[in-house]
Amino acid sequence: MSPKALDHDSINENVKRAQYAVRGELYLRASELQKEGKKIIFTNVGNPQALGQRPLTFPRQVIALCQAPFLLDDPNVGLIFPADAIARAKHYLSLTSGAGLGAYSDSRGIPGVRKEVAEFIQRRDGYPTDPELIYLTDGASKGILVPVPQYPLYSAAISLYGGSFVPYYLEETANWGLDINNLRQSVAQARSKGITARAMVIINPGNPTGQCLSEANLKEIIRFCHQENLVLLGDEVYQQNIYQDERPFLSSRKVLMDMGQPISKELQLISFHTVSKGYWGECGQRGGYFEMTNIPPETVDEIYKVASISLSPNIAGQIFVGLMVSPPRPGDISYEGFVRESKGILESLRRRAQLMTDGFNSCRNVVCNFTEGAMYSFPQIRLPPKAIEAAKRAGKVPDVFYCLKLLEATGISTVPGSGFGQKEGVFHMRTTILPAEEEMPEIMGSFKKFNDEFMEQYDDHRGYSRM
Amino acid sequence: MSPKALDHDSINENVKRAQYAVRGELYLRASELQKEGKKIIFTNVGNPQALGQRPLTFPRQVIALCQAPFLLDDPNVGLIFPADAIARAKHYLSLTSGAGLGAYSDSRGIPGVRKEVAEFIQRRDGYPTDPELIYLTDGASKGILVPVPQYPLYSAAISLYGGSFVPYYLEETANWGLDINNLRQSVAQARSKGITARAMVIINPGNPTGQCLSEANLKEIIRFCHQENLVLLGDEVYQQNIYQDERPFLSSRKVLMDMGQPISKELQLISFHTVSKGYWGECGQRGGYFEMTNIPPETVDEIYKVASISLSPNIAGQIFVGLMVSPPRPGDISYEGFVRESKGILESLRRRAQLMTDGFNSCRNVVCNFTEGAMYSFPQIRLPPKAIEAAKRAGKVPDVFYCLKLLEATGISTVPGSGFGQKEGVFHMRTTILPAEEEMPEIMGSFKKFNDEFMEQYDDHRGYSRM
Ligand SMILES: Cc1ncc(COP(=O)(O)O)c(C=O)c1O
Ligand SMILES: Cc1ncc(COP(=O)(O)O)c(C=O)c1O
Repeated sequence: MSPKALDHDSINENVKRAQYAVRGELYLRASELQKEGKKIIFTNVGNPQALGQRPLTFPRQVIALCQAPFLLDDPNVGLIFPADAIARAKHYLSLTSGAGLGAYSDSRGIPGVRKEVAEFIQRRDGYPTDPELIYLTDGASKGILVPVPQYPLYSAAISLYGGSFVPYYLEETANWGLDINNLRQSVAQARSKGITARAMVIINPGNPTGQCLSEANLKEIIRFCHQENLVLLGDEVYQQNIYQDERPFLSSRKVLMDMGQPISKELQLISFHTVSKGYWGECGQRGGYFEMTNIPPETVDEIYKVASISLSPNIAGQIFVGLMVSPPRPGDISYEGFVRESKGILESLRRRAQLMTDGFNSCRNVVCNFTEGAMYSFPQIRLPPKAIEAAKRAGKVPDVFYCLKLLEATGISTVPGSGFGQKEGVFHMRTTILPAEEEMPEIMGSFKKFNDEFMEQYDDHRGYSRM
Repeated sequence: MSPKALDHDSINENVKRAQYAVRGELYLRASELQKEGKKIIFTNVGNPQALGQRPLTFPRQVIALCQAPFLLDDPNVGLIFPADAIARAKHYLSLTSGAGLGAYSDSRGIPGVRKEVAEFIQRRDGYPTDPELIYLTDGASKGILVPVPQYPLYSAAISLYGGSFVPYYLEETANWGLDINNLRQSVAQARSKGITARAMVIINPGNPTGQCLSEANLKEIIRFCHQENLVLLGDEVYQQNIYQDERPFLSSRKVLMDMGQPISKELQLISFHTVSKGYWGECGQRGGYFEMTNIPPETVDEIYKVASISLSPNIAGQIFVGLMVSPPRPGDISYEGFVRESKGILESLRRRAQLMTDGFNSCRNVVCNFTEGAMYSFPQIRLPPKAIEAAKRAGKVPDVFYCLKLLEATGISTVPGSGFGQKEGVFHMRTTILPAEEEMPEIMGSFKKFNDEFMEQYDDHRGYSRM
């Protein structure tokens, strides 16, 4: 009998080639162990509220009222909701023309919320922007996956759409900085293989590397993309997550505009933001946006058409975007509580970033750069040759071998560095800095115990893999 | 200078080829007119709450509490929320392991909700099903767009992924029934052009045609797909929307299981459902699921991997799916209110279906089948030759010409039949049956006035296009 349409042999090779490590083998094994009753510490995805972060109160009050608009007529509503949340809920419901959360919006998102995003960008960067070029999405991932070819945020998406992935390497010894010469080499090398690069992604602050790009570095990148006719995709979902003061977040768009004409009118740039990160951490709500700069109107129309096929982003997520870009202001009833909650989260993340870096650096054969921003720690694990041989015998990539052993021994679920790409012969693992602050000492202790025993077992002091 | 990456000339031809009529030219013009202050009646998308349908109270109460879980500790919560909504909110929060609505779930959806969906399917069809083969999605559209090649629910998605679209025609004269001989011809014709059909979509009840498929017809379709090695995609998003008693909704899965082995173990079937339709109409929440039958485990894994790239469907939408498949039960505090609201909506839709069909059939050169199910009316408009010539002179497809004139004259925003495909020389338009019942007489009156004047203007009684 001939194979059926969805037999594994029949399906598209691009689908099979796509790899997505964050939810790959390690995650699957962790889920199994959890089912068997083992306590798992999920540090594999930046998912703060799954690790105990409490949601911010005010935005949740607003959304609850939007979900249950009949409460607005209830004489008792004031007993459990503050007046400014009630007012804000009425505001967003009016932006939906009264249709509320249960109606599809325009596929680009609710016009009034897109206007609030434009105002936020202008406040942040000091340059006006056009709400017509801001599209709301179900989280940044959905925006990023608009299937324009060579839209290479993640290697998975590229494989899926049959594109080619041109890697460039960040410099671990320079705190994961971006060396423009490396970039030039990568593009030239790709060209010599017949691949024309079309887009460049930067993640700033970086995932998994945590680095914050300097203004000088951003300018180099922008000039490079301009010369090479690359569209720059600026993944800026971690813009609120900054844990040092030397390099505050600078948006690609601001740096581009500061550079003036002609480049500010020519470089094609798409910037992404989300409610999943920052001190919001509202991952499950699926709210985000992307902003297009210097994209020709006919292309914007095509992107609109593609967005139309899935009808509309979820409305509650859109309103979360609105709330993120216009939080309570001084004088509002909820202002002080909001500031207390959000500062509390950010300050604790900052302390956790430090705890983790220090913890990793105290371990045998582990070296780790400081997490300047974002939500991750990306220590290098210097695996001894005997460990690499043992991994080969087990049929595993060495860092996968290490991370699986870590998972089995401690319940700590991480992502092997090979899922992100790393230089030949160098190994890492990625964890988030999200476990609760009070659990951090125990987690780092249990990591250190595992790691140092692992190294004791495999390290015969003949030497080990190094960068 | 060489073209930039996102210049219109550079982007993928598949993107440009994709067409999506529901939000096409007519919709854009309607949006413009609305901006200019004209009152527009949007009957172009099945979007009930945008046309005044009120959301069901109980599910909205549950979701509001899930969004604001701190209310569950508020001593006054019982003043504005009923006890069963409070209990249900606690139930769903516990299914998220306490993480609530702000954390990514597994990419397939929350396991507990998938279990509730499996129980619903078993109650509905009388056959057990495996929660591991049920994936929750951000609305049915998102599920359908899983980029497995040749996943041709909508022609737009097919174009986008570079597939080929093999049309089969429904029989207007047989109340839009599906003639299996037509189907055979279509597949044979495609084969003679070198195209191997991989999947067949049925929409039951139909959009735009409104027909409900009989058991005999479903069996024929299943046998046909089995013979031809086609995966059957059963879009059953309108399963609650039935407006006659002769042909109740039958799921493809039930009919398949009733047919027994070997076919019940062999036919590859994917069924879709959503919270956007039925008496729910929660379009903006983006909640849906698909269920896989006889799909090999390795392919299920690939689909899981693809789903992982966008991390997780929105959690509130997932809980809406849970609420849809397990609504309040007799004896629950909210049961009577829930039944009153849901029956009220369905009965009114049934009356509106009748009002619309009768209204269209009272118009000159218009013939319309009865809306047996779903949310649409799809009258045939017999355009006189002079109207067709006028359209050509205006550079418009004839039914687009007609619908644009209708929009300008009355504010009624519809979708031309050409956006759905229709036989050569035959013209239709699609409206939803969703405008408020009390506004229906006025809308149908204004349609009739426009149509009859249009026909008076162009019909010189020499004859007209006919089926
Ligand atoms: C760099 C980066 N971009 C985008 C995303 C997607 O976030 P979301 O789709 O939840 O907005 C993530 C999630 O972890 C991320 O790390
Ligand atoms: C036949 C059909 N399938 C699927 C959908 C998508 O619905 P949603 O993505 O809102 O679940 C629609 C929407 O109108 C539809 O008509």
